[in-house]
Amino acid sequence: MKILVINTGSSSIKYQLFEMPERKVLAKGLVERIGHDDSQVTHQYRQEGELEKHTRTMPVKDHREGLQIVSTLLTSPELGVIHDPSEVDAVGHRVVHGGEHFSATTLIGDEVLETIRRLIPLAPLHNPANLRGIEVAMEIFSSAKQVAVFDTAFHQTIPEEAFRYAIPGSFYREHGVRVYGFHGTSHLYVAKRAAEFLGKDVEDVNLITLHLGNGASVTAVKNGQSVDTSMGFSPLPGLMMGTRCGDIDPSIIFYMNRALGMGMDEIDDLLNKKSGLLGVGGNNDLRDILKRAEGGDKNARLALGMYTYRIKKYIGAYVAVLNRVDALVFTAGVGENSPLIRRMACEGLEHMGIRVNEERNRRAIGVMTEIQAAESHVRILVIPTDEELEIALQTGRIVARASREKVEK
Amino acid sequence: MKILVINTGSSSIKYQLFEMPERKVLAKGLVERIGHDDSQVTHQYRQEGELEKHTRTMPVKDHREGLQIVSTLLTSPELGVIHDPSEVDAVGHRVVHGGEHFSATTLIGDEVLETIRRLIPLAPLHNPANLRGIEVAMEIFSSAKQVAVFDTAFHQTIPEEAFRYAIPGSFYREHGVRVYGFHGTSHLYVAKRAAEFLGKDVEDVNLITLHLGNGASVTAVKNGQSVDTSMGFSPLPGLMMGTRCGDIDPSIIFYMNRALGMGMDEIDDLLNKKSGLLGVGGNNDLRDILKRAEGGDKNARLALGMYTYRIKKYIGAYVAVLNRVDALVFTAGVGENSPLIRRMACEGLEHMGIRVNEERNRRAIGVMTEIQAAESHVRILVIPTDEELEIALQTGRIVARASREKVEK
Repeated sequence: MKILVINTGSSSIKYQLFEMPERKVLAKGLVERIGHDDSQVTHQYRQEGELEKHTRTMPVKDHREGLQIVSTLLTSPELGVIHDPSEVDAVGHRVVHGGEHFSATTLIGDEVLETIRRLIPLAPLHNPANLRGIEVAMEIFSSAKQVAVFDTAFHQTIPEEAFRYAIPGSFYREHGVRVYGFHGTSHLYVAKRAAEFLGKDVEDVNLITLHLGNGASVTAVKNGQSVDTSMGFSPLPGLMMGTRCGDIDPSIIFYMNRALGMGMDEIDDLLNKKSGLLGVGGNNDLRDILKRAEGGDKNARLALGMYTYRIKKYIGAYVAVLNRVDALVFTAGVGENSPLIRRMACEGLEHMGIRVNEERNRRAIGVMTEIQAAESHVRILVIPTDEELEIALQTGRIVARASREKVEK
Repeated sequence: MKILVINTGSSSIKYQLFEMPERKVLAKGLVERIGHDDSQVTHQYRQEGELEKHTRTMPVKDHREGLQIVSTLLTSPELGVIHDPSEVDAVGHRVVHGGEHFSATTLIGDEVLETIRRLIPLAPLHNPANLRGIEVAMEIFSSAKQVAVFDTAFHQTIPEEAFRYAIPGSFYREHGVRVYGFHGTSHLYVAKRAAEFLGKDVEDVNLITLHLGNGASVTAVKNGQSVDTSMGFSPLPGLMMGTRCGDIDPSIIFYMNRALGMGMDEIDDLLNKKSGLLGVGGNNDLRDILKRAEGGDKNARLALGMYTYRIKKYIGAYVAVLNRVDALVFTAGVGENSPLIRRMACEGLEHMGIRVNEERNRRAIGVMTEIQAAESHVRILVIPTDEELEIALQTGRIVARASREKVEK
């Protein structure tokens, strides 16, 4: 079965074509700067076992044209891996916000489309692009099953005392103001891999999963289910991120607006795009911060200290929530590749039974492994995440179930 | 030495007259609803060892008239405890916001007054009232030394990685946007009492102090110093409170403003005055919530669950910050008087070495005692706070030092 995974942003399309259940990546790529004259297309395709790379710059006016290019590349005699779009059996779409309606992956029909549309006020930046991606894919890959995999779904098991905000209940009941959480596909994927690594069923493990990428979030996983997470109503709160502020006193918004005369759009832009590592340390990429910190730059050092201090506090909070913790799991760009961040985040947690082995930690770069010291009560894992694969797995399962049910009827 | 402690709110004056160093309360009281025709005056005065109570309703047009009434009551032949205002040696003023300028209690002179005035933008509700109280006290108790005790001072030891927000550094350097923390006088007072109780110097203890009143905050105390606290730039974030929301995704403010059409003042009012226990559970007083929860009310139960869940997460976060914790300290109205809240907040923390003894906990109502189980690694203390006494103690110390320095010159 061939499954195409699509992740549509406001000006980009990320795609990956899998042969399932072999989990084999046939092709993958990215169309960037859609709507500009110098859109970038990066396409990788499997040829004799290797992934070959092809790039071009060209105007791509909208998402339809973008996905048309993807389809042309996938079926091209030179750069392609299939002969016809109809060979794609299913398209799995990453959808950022599923609200309270979707606690699992779902086949897309009119009703599902309508619900994703209704949720736009909750995810004004993401859901319109995701929706556009689905609509275009339904045209171009018209014979394929379309499946939606929600970033919020994994967190729908969070109990009410953790997902509610301490504001009048009407805001929850009438306007959906609650914790949704994001990065759910990644947290779920690494939780399952962690359980495998520990030789247990995922239903039997308590984990703290740390997705540290350009966006970053922590999830408390109890018996395989999300019971709390650091992002909330939006992807803004929680950990310090590349450009997002994470947790902040909400009064600062009133102060910026009233005492400093800043407009709401300006403040929103500041907290989402000019804060975090960029705002404090001058770079949004942690690798640059690390380099500058090593060179003695004070702001870069402060940014590092703040970044890891906040991770540490979340680890403590979630140890309190979970009581017994089997493992911490570090994942995503920073989590998989930065021994320094992992060490700093775990420093001083020995009384909680958390202790890193320096040598193991240093060697763990982008591979699945464990890095705790022998005397650590909690295991500390590094697990590369793969959201695309998780979307393909879930899409395959939904499609298989749907055809089984069809046969049974 | 007679020390008058004054805590001035926007429409109230709270006062307490101490004989020091005996720590004896000669009189205390409250003038409420200043500016109204039906202001309330409550005055208690020591007579033959007992505190007698006197109340009256009368118009009090402003803070000067209010403090004049206090002075008249204190010197009245029937209700008074002194003969003349000049018998008051020092007046200790609670001042909410000392910014970064004041990390300790200070004698008030022109420069100090000017600095408190300059800090008004950071504490627009509190500092103007505090300032008014000082000005009026300087007239009425003109021979007394005037001393300012800041709610923020204890937290000035918080390190930069904990007091900075992840927003561009210019907001800190140019506009003072950082964590200040509040309830400092209470956290310091109970930290000192806890150290005494543990038979140690305060410099040698690591504590998590939980001030749970109508306002509520937690402080991580390392070697006797505050190293982190749950309130921040303002008293809004952190724990769920009587009417304040505590921690919340800041994006909700943008959503309320843009999607729901609410104005900034309306949102500010909602988060500060209509949220917390009131917003979720329907009452701002925890005693009412407890009663209704017992009767099976769902919203009251949810409010209780959220209230204690958030305390638990802060305990975990601060265990991570402190690594070794000698004791948790519960204080203020709720902390001193609610065994249920203490039990719920500590439930499931056994893996952190925190375990309550049920029987001890039940009996600990408004008294200084310990309530941990025998196998608990962390001691759990209940310590009644006394901010007025702490202000009197600090005022006495400052005045004594000032006169010593005068003699030496």
